Amino acid sequence: MKLILVGFGVVGQGFAEILQSKASWLSRERGFVPTIVGVVTATKGSLFLPDGLDSSALLAAAETGSFDAYPRHADLRRDMSVSDIIGAGIADALVEVSPTNLDTAQPALANCLQALDAGLHLALANKGPVALDLLRLRAKANAKGLQLRYEATVMAGTPIMQMAEEALAGCQIQAARGILNGTTNYILTQMENGMSYADALAQAQALGYAETDPAGDVEGWDAAGKVLILAGALFGRRLNMSDLDVSGITGLASDDIADAKAAGERYKLIAEATPDGGSVAATRLPLSNPLASVSGATNAITLDTDLMGAVTLIGAGAGKRETGSAILADLLAINRAAR
Amino acid sequence: MKLILVGFGVVGQGFAEILQSKASWLSRERGFVPTIVGVVTATKGSLFLPDGLDSSALLAAAETGSFDAYPRHADLRRDMSVSDIIGAGIADALVEVSPTNLDTAQPALANCLQALDAGLHLALANKGPVALDLLRLRAKANAKGLQLRYEATVMAGTPIMQMAEEALAGCQIQAARGILNGTTNYILTQMENGMSYADALAQAQALGYAETDPAGDVEGWDAAGKVLILAGALFGRRLNMSDLDVSGITGLASDDIADAKAAGERYKLIAEATPDGGSVAATRLPLSNPLASVSGATNAITLDTDLMGAVTLIGAGAGKRETGSAILADLLAINRAAR
Repeated sequence: MKLILVGFGVVGQGFAEILQSKASWLSRERGFVPTIVGVVTATKGSLFLPDGLDSSALLAAAETGSFDAYPRHADLRRDMSVSDIIGAGIADALVEVSPTNLDTAQPALANCLQALDAGLHLALANKGPVALDLLRLRAKANAKGLQLRYEATVMAGTPIMQMAEEALAGCQIQAARGILNGTTNYILTQMENGMSYADALAQAQALGYAETDPAGDVEGWDAAGKVLILAGALFGRRLNMSDLDVSGITGLASDDIADAKAAGERYKLIAEATPDGGSVAATRLPLSNPLASVSGATNAITLDTDLMGAVTLIGAGAGKRETGSAILADLLAINRAAR
Repeated sequence: MKLILVGFGVVGQGFAEILQSKASWLSRERGFVPTIVGVVTATKGSLFLPDGLDSSALLAAAETGSFDAYPRHADLRRDMSVSDIIGAGIADALVEVSPTNLDTAQPALANCLQALDAGLHLALANKGPVALDLLRLRAKANAKGLQLRYEATVMAGTPIMQMAEEALAGCQIQAARGILNGTTNYILTQMENGMSYADALAQAQALGYAETDPAGDVEGWDAAGKVLILAGALFGRRLNMSDLDVSGITGLASDDIADAKAAGERYKLIAEATPDGGSVAATRLPLSNPLASVSGATNAITLDTDLMGAVTLIGAGAGKRETGSAILADLLAINRAAR
């Protein structure tokens, strides 16, 4: 399977590291032999080599901050655009791992549409196109008989999308409710352990969970983006941020956390999608709710279904390797479907 | 998709009820139009109708205890064997939902092997053939390009098998550890709430969780059968019961439960499979372990993986509709692969 990577930040590098370390296992155990033929980034440059780029050399060049450091090769082309590389007609799938833009989803959305038009399967970690225009992408992919996959966009490689869309395909899902932002769950866990909000936030930043500007996490917008994705994927609804009730954890004081604890409950930032809409809000849960015992940066989701009742999935929601793993899972699913 | 059902007890009836209630949804939303062409049972008789049996009439006849009550039809044949119906060359898949025999797996194993030889896909709720001879069935299915699925055998329709074998196909699984028997988890939960073992067992029996002879549950053998299945499915190992360390909950006194509770821990009957073997044992878990908070008859499993760390799945582990749902999930996966 010949791949174009758009973006080569944390997720792209995590994916390349997995390919590097597991290539022989993937070939032997899964019959999967991927080749990265192109990589396009906004800041490091771009590379295209029809015979396949070397993952180790890609990672080493990325370390320098520029693909200029990638070794010369007679057939190597530098500085081609995504559009040019798609147009070269070599690749089987586009892996969209460039930074998420939840306002316009661009330029990723245009690249994804072009890739589908050109007959490429898609695997996205970039939330933008999935959150803002999943239904259009889905219609185009279906019309072309192509796979459109986005496991990485919600809970990293914890396989919520394959579970909801395939393993539970016989069930009607009535609601999805989860802890979909690890930073805020880490902060809430530390606050329950007695830490102040400011100290917990500072610790989350020191550990790399929270950005320097943590607003996207603590005000609920990151989780809200995932609600848009779930609304599209599970309920076929195209919602906008303005359709959601979104609040974060910034309004919670240590006293609130302590009050909940005294009542045998816990505050969790719960993101919810139903056929009727979606929300993100700090919510008191009884300890008997499986989501209540999810601590630290871990993510979790409960699907309410007609046939199975509640099914809960708990796992990592972020991380270089964990998100790269989701891309690999998507490509393996594409590979299975193609056989 | 034309189906032969072997067995029509709780699981088979649960599956037929789902088909009856969701037929138009499955056709419209999933492009799945199943037809039951044959049903063979040990106690109710057998029916074969190439144009398809009527689910409502099947369920009504089963209520009487005999398929003699199924309405007459010119093309209907009664009392054919599984072998005869397979030999008729009409069916696409065999659904094995007859009672589990963990000693010999027969007669289900022979029927499954014959079905594969005849080019039929397989979906099993019967644990026997999967626990005792998965690797042989797998080799034959692979050689024939057929699907072999058994979601129902572990955790009913909670999709542990699709998660482990497909959604996490990029990960190497290092261990599977779970609460795989709902009866014992219900008893342990009630004992932690102060009930005696005898009272909790009686309540589990009154609720239909435990059999009149509860030995298979409380001595750990039901869970051990699932360890055999996980060992084969996840690690390609053919283990026998005698290879496992199996103990149940019969040795636990109320004092043990209370001691654990006082130490901030909980006893759970943990079934474990690793590449090195398997076990079933009552185990004290800290409350921070996601398995510790799984109460009542609910099941749960944690997979330790190389790329994703721990991934935990929590859901129903038994039930008519929940197990029937697993058969449906398997058939939908077969249907997807066939497209």
